Amino acid sequence: MEAFLYGRLYLVTDRQGLAEGHFLDIIEKAVQGGVTCVQLREKSASDAVFLALAHQLKKRLQPYQVPLIINDRVDIALVVGADGVHLGQSDMQVHLARKVLGPKAIIGLSAEISVENVQAAEVLDVDYIAVGPIFPTSTKMDAGPACGLEGLRALCLASSKPVIAIGGINQHNLASVMDQGVVGGAMVAALMQAVDPYASAQAFRACIDQKLSKRFV
Amino acid sequence: MEAFLYGRLYLVTDRQGLAEGHFLDIIEKAVQGGVTCVQLREKSASDAVFLALAHQLKKRLQPYQVPLIINDRVDIALVVGADGVHLGQSDMQVHLARKVLGPKAIIGLSAEISVENVQAAEVLDVDYIAVGPIFPTSTKMDAGPACGLEGLRALCLASSKPVIAIGGINQHNLASVMDQGVVGGAMVAALMQAVDPYASAQAFRACIDQKLSKRFV
Repeated sequence: MEAFLYGRLYLVTDRQGLAEGHFLDIIEKAVQGGVTCVQLREKSASDAVFLALAHQLKKRLQPYQVPLIINDRVDIALVVGADGVHLGQSDMQVHLARKVLGPKAIIGLSAEISVENVQAAEVLDVDYIAVGPIFPTSTKMDAGPACGLEGLRALCLASSKPVIAIGGINQHNLASVMDQGVVGGAMVAALMQAVDPYASAQAFRACIDQKLSKRFV
Repeated sequence: MEAFLYGRLYLVTDRQGLAEGHFLDIIEKAVQGGVTCVQLREKSASDAVFLALAHQLKKRLQPYQVPLIINDRVDIALVVGADGVHLGQSDMQVHLARKVLGPKAIIGLSAEISVENVQAAEVLDVDYIAVGPIFPTSTKMDAGPACGLEGLRALCLASSKPVIAIGGINQHNLASVMDQGVVGGAMVAALMQAVDPYASAQAFRACIDQKLSKRFV
C-alpha cells in the first residue's frame, strides 16, 4: 500500500488517562470517520501492556483494513503482525528494521524538522517521512521548535519521499498544511481529545481528500 | 547449550558512568577470567545506542564463545544475532519471544522471588529462571525485598527449571548461594565494579566450579 493512500489522515495514539476500552473506542470511531492509518505510540507502558494493547488494537482495526503501525518497537510490530513500524532518529536503523519486518512492511521515519534528516532519508528504504512539529504541540514533550508552513514547504521540496506532517495540526490549519506538498496530516490531540472523534475525523478527511483531489487529478 | 554450562557465572552488565571502550574492556576481562554468559542490560539508552553496544559486545565476545543475552529486547537480540534474551515478568511473553527467536535461542525469565512466578514458569519454554534478589542490591532500583539463602532454597525446590541466583552476590556469599540448588550465580556490581574484573571472575568461577563438581560427579 502506498503512503499517499494510508498516509492521508494518520492517527497517532495518546492513551494518557484513558481506560483501555475507552481508548480503543476513540480510535475505532476516528477510523469509522475516515482515519486511514493508526500508529500505536506508547512511551511508558511495560512491554506486556504495550503488546496487549497492540493485539487489541489490531483486532479492532481488522474490519476496516486500516494499517496498524507500531511506534519504535520492531519486535512488537513483528509479534502482533502489525503492518509496520514508525522509527525515530534514535530508534533502530531503518535497514535493520527492514531486515526484520520484510519488504512489505510499512516503515516510516521521523525526520523532525531537519533538512539534514530529510536528505539522509533519501537513500533509506522508508515508505514515508514524518515531518514536524509544524505548530507547537502539547502531546509530545520532547518535540523541538515548530517549523511553520514555510518550513514544511521547504522540507517537502527537499524530499522525494512522501511527507506526512505532524505536530499541532487541527481544523484551523489543516487545509494550509495540505497546501505545502504533504501526502497527509498526522494528528494526536485533534482526534484523541476530540469531543466527537467520528465527526472530527470525517471533517479532517473531507478537507484532506478535497485538497489531494485538486493536486492529483 | 544448556543452562548448567553457560549459567554458571553469569554477568549482567551495568554501564553507568563508563565510556563504551572501558565498559567493553571490563566485560572482556571478566570473560577472560571465567564468566560463562553475558547479559547486556540497558535501561535508559536509546535503541540506536543499545543496538550499537550490542553489536560491539557481540564482536568482543565472539572469540570466547560466551553467549550474549539481551535484556528485554527481542528485536535487538534478533537484529544483532545474539544468543538469546532475558525477559522480566512485564516484558514480552515467553512464547512470543520464542516464536520470534526460534528454538535454539536461550530464553531466560526473571521469576523474582515469587513462588507463583517460579511455578508459572514450569510450563513455559524457558531455558532458565533467574531468582532474586537473594541479598539487598544497589544496581537494580526496582528490585523487591531479598529472599535470603533459605528463600532461595525453597524457590529452587519449587522449580524443575535451572535456577540462576541474582542480587547482592559477592565473594563472601557465593559459596553459600551455590549450596542452595542453583546452576549458577549472576553478578552485576561484583564484576562490573571490581578493581580487577579478571581476578574476580577467576575467583568466582573457581568457587562455582568446585561447588558444582561436588554436586554433579
